[in-house]
Amino acid sequence: MSKIFKYIRNIHYYETDSMGITHHSNYVRFFEEARIDFMSYIDLAYDKLERLGIIIPVTGIDLEYKNVSKFAQILRFESAIVLFTGVRMTVQYKVFDNETNELICSGHTKHAFVDSNFQPFALQKKFPEIYQKFEDWNLKKEF
Amino acid sequence: MSKIFKYIRNIHYYETDSMGITHHSNYVRFFEEARIDFMSYIDLAYDKLERLGIIIPVTGIDLEYKNVSKFAQILRFESAIVLFTGVRMTVQYKVFDNETNELICSGHTKHAFVDSNFQPFALQKKFPEIYQKFEDWNLKKEF
Amino acid sequence: MSKIFKYIRNIHYYETDSMGITHHSNYVRFFEEARIDFMSYIDLAYDKLERLGIIIPVTGIDLEYKNVSKFAQILRFESAIVLFTGVRMTVQYKVFDNETNELICSGHTKHAFVDSNFQPFALQKKFPEIYQKFEDWNLKKEF
Amino acid sequence: MSKIFKYIRNIHYYETDSMGITHHSNYVRFFEEARIDFMSYIDLAYDKLERLGIIIPVTGIDLEYKNVSKFAQILRFESAIVLFTGVRMTVQYKVFDNETNELICSGHTKHAFVDSNFQPFALQKKFPEIYQKFEDWNLKKEF
Repeated sequence: MSKIFKYIRNIHYYETDSMGITHHSNYVRFFEEARIDFMSYIDLAYDKLERLGIIIPVTGIDLEYKNVSKFAQILRFESAIVLFTGVRMTVQYKVFDNETNELICSGHTKHAFVDSNFQPFALQKKFPEIYQKFEDWNLKKEF
Repeated sequence: MSKIFKYIRNIHYYETDSMGITHHSNYVRFFEEARIDFMSYIDLAYDKLERLGIIIPVTGIDLEYKNVSKFAQILRFESAIVLFTGVRMTVQYKVFDNETNELICSGHTKHAFVDSNFQPFALQKKFPEIYQKFEDWNLKKEF
Repeated sequence: MSKIFKYIRNIHYYETDSMGITHHSNYVRFFEEARIDFMSYIDLAYDKLERLGIIIPVTGIDLEYKNVSKFAQILRFESAIVLFTGVRMTVQYKVFDNETNELICSGHTKHAFVDSNFQPFALQKKFPEIYQKFEDWNLKKEF
Repeated sequence: MSKIFKYIRNIHYYETDSMGITHHSNYVRFFEEARIDFMSYIDLAYDKLERLGIIIPVTGIDLEYKNVSKFAQILRFESAIVLFTGVRMTVQYKVFDNETNELICSGHTKHAFVDSNFQPFALQKKFPEIYQKFEDWNLKKEF
């Protein structure tokens, strides 16, 4: 079973800019969509975690833009957990044109696990089953 | 003293679309900026009201787009309270190119006054001074 | 064959605001998504029309917000052409919670048909087949 | 004369999310605002460059989030060119609470210089004066 998750979505008109291409800031939002869809798939729906008091803010982000995308283009986001300690997590992303497989963009988001007061806590001790699910899906290396 | 408030801002690159113009959805956000700046000016800063438990959600909106605007163009938003009952409020907006005075867009937002549980309440009874400030700035007619 | 088109999508985290609800401006963007999906379905994909020199800007919009929606909620957009003259078009929208069928929001967008220089032109004369498709899907009344 | 440029702006309501904080994706947009304001100040207004056929797309981005910001908070963006070759450019950013000077976020954007067909070209040869202005403002090191 692959630990790399696929998420497919097309570019909306309001996501383009005057250059006629997808504005680069939107990929940060697409990463969030892909990540939340991934987590939902592995039964760690973000809204469920929030109700349990598990907040997973983004603490860092990096992106490399390789090719532009345009309105109505269909992109495939591949994402995987490449680092997970119970305190921190890194998710890697690769974005492809879904038809031609041209690489559009790649990057990472870094995360902390905090409670609803934004205080760090030991996920493994407080929610061992949730910890285990993240660990089960941890690819442990760049793809 | 005019009851019509002026708010000036330029168009950001990320607010344009593939047509080379400001995406029409952004004017709804600009209306919010103009309204919140107006309220702050009359000492009804929105974050202060929220802390008091006064929430003013948008219940309706209408816009007419007359001319397009583009990246870096400087727009002037004129807004005024045209209806206020203590339970409901309507704010009117006119958007001009700040240099040529060409009309770009006009519209209204409708609002309710609710508490932090989204329940309606009598602003006049619970916060008479805040009620009075809104009433003082009520233009009471379209401009 | 129904002339009312259905479009389903969930709310993304970045579309919520400090009130914990979907920011009202986003529905204008969702209307665009629903409309473009509709047009694509009836073989009038917006990017194809743009390449033919048919631009369909929004000239007006109105929305009534009935209930709030939240992160991860799944909404169903029902939309139909309720007025079409070849020069102007009005599209109506109703937005429901996809599970409970609670009405979240309703509204309209008004459109003009212009060429790539934003000049009005006679769609029926220049592109009779495209004119006919719009006319075939014209519900001709509010729903 | 400092080569570090300051840009000040407050957080809009629509830029917050359900966590009650500024959504992390927006800082990418704020970086663009700060950069374009900077360029405008040094007489390299982005729209003017675009008309000359000089396009400066973002080829990479990195951000570290240190503290959250909230609705109505006033942020100060400090930015400087830290690398410039005429073919590539890196801009560094530090974001502070404008009152407390608390560091909110820091990061970089990387850029290429391309013509209106997205082809690289020699800025120094084709536009020596524009090349010189970038070079004059090149801080040449991280700050």
